[in-house]
Order: sequence, then C-alpha cells, then structure tokens
Amino acid sequence: MKFFNVKTVPETHDIIREHFQATKKPITVALSNALGMVLAEEIISPETVPPFARSTVDGYTVKAKDTYGASESLPGFLDITGKIEMGKAADKLLQEGQAQYIPTGGMLPPGADSVVMVEHVEELGDLLNVYRQVAPGENVIQAGEDVQAGDVVLRAGRRLRPQDLGVLSAIGITEVSVFPRPVVGILSTGDEIVPPDKKELSPGEIRDINGITISAAARAYGATVIDAGIVKDEYDEFFTRAKELFEKVDLLLLSGGSSVGTRDFTVHVLEALGEPGILVHGVAVKPGKPTILAKAQGKPVLGLPGHPASAMIIFDLFAIPVLRQLEGLSTPAIDHRLSVRIARNIPSAVGRTDYVRVKLENRENELWAIPVFGKSGLITTMAESDGMVEIPASKEGILEGEFVRVKLFV
Amino acid sequence: MKFFNVKTVPETHDIIREHFQATKKPITVALSNALGMVLAEEIISPETVPPFARSTVDGYTVKAKDTYGASESLPGFLDITGKIEMGKAADKLLQEGQAQYIPTGGMLPPGADSVVMVEHVEELGDLLNVYRQVAPGENVIQAGEDVQAGDVVLRAGRRLRPQDLGVLSAIGITEVSVFPRPVVGILSTGDEIVPPDKKELSPGEIRDINGITISAAARAYGATVIDAGIVKDEYDEFFTRAKELFEKVDLLLLSGGSSVGTRDFTVHVLEALGEPGILVHGVAVKPGKPTILAKAQGKPVLGLPGHPASAMIIFDLFAIPVLRQLEGLSTPAIDHRLSVRIARNIPSAVGRTDYVRVKLENRENELWAIPVFGKSGLITTMAESDGMVEIPASKEGILEGEFVRVKLFV
Repeated sequence: MKFFNVKTVPETHDIIREHFQATKKPITVALSNALGMVLAEEIISPETVPPFARSTVDGYTVKAKDTYGASESLPGFLDITGKIEMGKAADKLLQEGQAQYIPTGGMLPPGADSVVMVEHVEELGDLLNVYRQVAPGENVIQAGEDVQAGDVVLRAGRRLRPQDLGVLSAIGITEVSVFPRPVVGILSTGDEIVPPDKKELSPGEIRDINGITISAAARAYGATVIDAGIVKDEYDEFFTRAKELFEKVDLLLLSGGSSVGTRDFTVHVLEALGEPGILVHGVAVKPGKPTILAKAQGKPVLGLPGHPASAMIIFDLFAIPVLRQLEGLSTPAIDHRLSVRIARNIPSAVGRTDYVRVKLENRENELWAIPVFGKSGLITTMAESDGMVEIPASKEGILEGEFVRVKLFV
Repeated sequence: MKFFNVKTVPETHDIIREHFQATKKPITVALSNALGMVLAEEIISPETVPPFARSTVDGYTVKAKDTYGASESLPGFLDITGKIEMGKAADKLLQEGQAQYIPTGGMLPPGADSVVMVEHVEELGDLLNVYRQVAPGENVIQAGEDVQAGDVVLRAGRRLRPQDLGVLSAIGITEVSVFPRPVVGILSTGDEIVPPDKKELSPGEIRDINGITISAAARAYGATVIDAGIVKDEYDEFFTRAKELFEKVDLLLLSGGSSVGTRDFTVHVLEALGEPGILVHGVAVKPGKPTILAKAQGKPVLGLPGHPASAMIIFDLFAIPVLRQLEGLSTPAIDHRLSVRIARNIPSAVGRTDYVRVKLENRENELWAIPVFGKSGLITTMAESDGMVEIPASKEGILEGEFVRVKLFV
C-alpha cells in the first residue's frame, strides 16, 4: 500500500484538535465520583472561606497594639477574660488590655486582631505575661483569605484533582457537572491472531497482544473500554463487527492490519463507516507509519499498526490527544518528559519523528537513558523499557551524552 | 505539645521501609483485572514467542544467498513456487532458486531464511525479478526472538503496566498472582469540622476538606478507601471509631488534630491501638511538622496534620511510601520530578525539608516554577498549584533562576 500523503506528527495533532471536541452531554456526579473527570461548568463560590477569622496556632488572641514592645526582658501584661472553644461562636468582645485563650482553628472574637503563640506567654492565674509582640493579623487566617463569595474557584475544562475536590467541599458544593468518560472500543484483526487463552497454538498462529495492552492503556487513561476481541480478515464480518462496536463507543480503535490484506480491509471499513472518512493515512513516525485516522458521523476511528510496540506508541501519541478532546479538556497538557542523557548515538532520518524505547539507569546521581533496541514486533522490548525518547523530525539523530526528553511509561 | 525527637524526612522513610512489608496473601486475578497491581510471583515463560520465524514485511521469502549481487541494473531471477497464508502452517519446502509470497506476520517455510520486500521485486507470471539483495535473517523475526521458553519474563514485586500484560498474553498466561490493593481508612477529627453537605454553617464551623482530598489521593494511588467521616474531640468516641476502622484497613489515616487538644487525643489513640505504638512523632518538614507515624499489631497508622495543604503534602511524602511497602513493590520508584527554574528567591531553614507549592509557566520554551505563597491552611493554594518543589534540609534556600526539582500533582 502506498502512503500518498503522509502527515507529520504535529500536523496530525492539529487535525485531531480541529476535528474532535466534547460531544457528549455533561452529567452530574457526586464529588466522591468526580476524581479525574473533566469539569463541564464554571464554579463560582456561593460562600466565603473561612467564614470567620481563625487562629493558625494555639495561643492567646489579643489586640496587637497591646503587645507592642513586649519582650523576654520586658513582658507585657494582659487580663485573661475567656477561652474560645473549637467549633463554637466566639462572641465575647475583646477589649483593650484583654486576652482570650484560642486553639488552632478557633474563631477570633470581635475586637481581636492577632494571636500570640502559647510558647511566647506565661499564665499566672488570670494574668497573662506576653514575651513577644505580634503584628495585626499575625497567626490568623482572615475571613475570605481562602475564597471570597463570588470568586471563580474552578473553570470548565479542567481535570479534577484531589485538591480541586477539596475546594468544592470547602464551599459546600457536593456535586458537579462533568463530561462523561469516553468509551473506547477495540477490535483486533488478523487471520494469524488467536485469543491469549488458546492452549495449543497451530503452526502460523500468534496470540493476541494488542487487545490487552491497548485496553489496559485506555483504562489507565481513565476511559471505559469495550474489548470486542478478534475478527478474521474477511471484509463482511470485519465491517459488521466494526460497525456494531462503532455504534457503542466514542472512539473506535482497530488494531492489526500489518499485512497488505488487512490494511486494505481497514481502509475500506473506515471509509464505509461514514463521512468524511479518512483524515490521515500514514504518519511520518517510526515506529507507526501505517497509522490511519478517520472520522465518521463526527466520531474518531483510529487504525493502529499491528506490531505491539508500534500500537502502544501510536496509542499514546494519537489516541490520548483524541481522548483529551472528547473529554472537553481545555487546559494544556504539562510536558511531563524528563530530561536525561542518552547512553548511545542513535541515527534518525530528517523529516520523520522517531521514538526509541529506553531503560533508565542512575549513573553518579544522574539519569541516563539506555536504548532498548529490537524490532517493533517484539513486546518484551516494551516490558524492558521505562519510557521512550522522541527524536524530532528536524534532527538527524542524537549523540551519546546529549540531553534528550524521556516520556515515561507509567 | 513538644516534639522531643523530631525525625528528618529520610529517617522517616528508613523507618517506613524497616517496619512495613506486604502482609496480605497474594490473590489470583485475570489479566483484565491486573493492571496496576503488584506481581507476587516470578513468571517463567512456558513457551517460545514467536513459535516460528515470521516475516516483518510483505514480500517474497527466499534463501538470502540466491539474492546476492542482485541490483536494479542486474536483477536476480527466482521461481515463484507458492504463497504463504496468514495463520496457516508454511510447510512447503523452499529450495534453491525459489521464492514464495509471504505477508507481514506470515510463517517462514522450511528452507527460507529471509524476505525481500515487495517494493524490491517484480512479478512476471511465475518468475520473480529481485532488485535488491538481502542478508540471512533480513526482514524476519526469528523463533524465540521475543521470548525463549524458560526465560524469566517478569519478576515478583513489579507493578503491572499495559505492556507487561501484553507479555503475559503473548505466552498464554491469562491469570497471575498479585498482592491485593491496600485498604486505606480515613477518619477526620475536630470539633469545628462539619460534613461538606451541611447547608448553613454555625459560627466557628468549617467544612471538612481533608476527608475528600485524602480519600481522592488514596484512590488516585490505587487504594481502596473507607472514608469514615468526622469524629468529635471526645476521647472515648474517637478511640472507638478509630479502633473500629483500624480493624478493617491496612493503613489507618487520622486527619486533623491541629490544636493541642486533638493532637493529644491522637497520640493517646495511636498508643492505645497496640504495640509498638508511635514510631515517629514530629518530622523536620514544612509544612507538616506535627506528623505522627505509628505501628499497631503490625499495621501502619499515620496522623496527618489538620491543615489541608499540609495533609496532602504529608500524604504524598509518607503515606505513598507506606502503601508501596504494603503492596510488596520492590522496584525502586523512578524520580519523576521535573527539573525547572525557580522564579523567585525562597529562604529555608537548614535541617528542615521544605515543600513549596508552585505553578508552572512556559517562558521562552523553558519551564519556570512560580511559587504559590499562602498559609498551609488554605486549600485554594493547592488548587492553583501544578506541583511542589522540595528544598532539601541541607540548603539555606534557593535563588531565583536556580534549577529545582518539581514533583507534579497529577
């Protein structure tokens, strides 16, 4: 098969951004189910947090000016007139020359503006010796210091992390509108592929690998997965099974098609699923050139290469960005790649992005990436690797000792 | 409360490694449920993968020596004597001067040692013109090139990634022995703490934040979580609820106790749960000094500081290493921290490890960490941050422009 119009990796990413967006209706979920989901609404706080000034230490709440000049050698003297209780209103007015005991997190009474730590005072009955001066606001979280009522606390399009759920809890919001998790369907093709649980292989047969690795990678991302198993290289059955799966999912992945026969089937199936059909047919990337990206009835379909290492790399490179789009994620992905030194020269062709599997090794407190060579048909090279190094299309290769970026397999 | 014997962060990590190991019996799970679990057995391959030599391209399988000297200007001529079918035995002997058509992934017939790509031949009826010579083994994955029967393919103590499941599928192993996921229990304390769903707060009340953030962080790690809610600062109830939860979990987290009263309760509860009791009482870390680590009846109990940002940082710093031990993970954690420049001077005390929340910003294609200042009682500082920078105990601070390591919040 010829690749008439091979796209670069950045071109393919542009096509993905242009063609795919969140299409599913947002759903409302309880906070306890919202971790990792993408927020579909802007959150404006109905409340002020904390709703009152709180102490950040155990000590005595005072008027700061009553402590001015106090020191170890020349303590100040205040009258102890009360004790704030945790979780209770502090409604006893603090007057000049007075102090009230306050625990960490306790509410400041009216008239008080600061707290002297318990380590810096001495109690003598109802009298308090103060050995250090404090400034107004010292050891206090002011009312609204965390959140002001009316503040935009979280914007739509953000993936909810534990601390984001914490902010929502703090302002009394216990359910949120989020985009549903995308559903990914996977169908493996090839006459030589048999299920992993087949006991005795016949000559020419190979157990399916991509079904489990790609399902697992999609689950690790957070998608719901339908693994539809294996289909033989027979057009009608292939189309029927693909179509059936396509109707149930948000992203259809077809894995296999490394031989001319299945590759042709894949192309025909992708075209038959609906308009506009194939968007990208071949990418200037190694491994993974025979990647196909299509769109049918608004939905993405990705034809992954058959070789296990290629399939995983292409899933990471293109299926993840598609899923981010489908989820409505609008915050840019942080570049998580580690900067490490490469342990060998690696040649590469200009105009093609290369991905080299590597193992990381600690040498004198510095991480080095050791290339794991091996054909992309081998799965053990992926299992031996900690991550992969990208050699950009603009480079002719990388030299031993050069700094490279490693994307870790997590 | 006094901290008589404050430990450093590395000392606390040593204590964790020394005291806690995988104690639960391994369980057998299907591969489809094994992602992210820690392998409890060594896997020795019962099979050779691939079980036969396969072609990595579409083309003609030949004896390499029959192609020697072939070129565009001086092609070699071979007789086409057959066609290998995918997934079928290739049992027709290939003799000198012969070629058989072979698809990608097809089985090499006896007598063949290499494959000429379809791009480098021309078919003229039963005659094949060969325009390029190949070496023995060219375009072939040899039998056993991926896995040899008897190879140790995966070692115990490793967390199973998608590609590891792929290796298992390839050798026909469809279930594995793994350590069960740890069960984490969380109990929040404090008289001022009320459930997030309480509509109107009374003066002095604050909604619980740590319950949701720490539950979510534990779930994000992969633990099973029991969130036992909030308990008042009353010793008998606190002990009863903590004990009840302790019996059900592998790691008990007590959150809160920022005031003297609750801190003292927490210490007493930890001591009453069983021998040997408290291992670490105070850590030289900011935020998070009032951290308590205990062991009772072989199980870990961690007292987290009450401030939301402190609680999350201490969870990450100490609860995650405890969970790794409980899971039987024996591969060292890869240092995932990014090396970026810090945008401001930050002072720090020698002898104490500081964690500074930061936001990442791209400046001229280089990542910079912008400190997010704010008291550790504020949850919004965590929501604004992308990660945290560690200032080691040996340093007096960091200077603007200096490279620092950022641990990303994921």
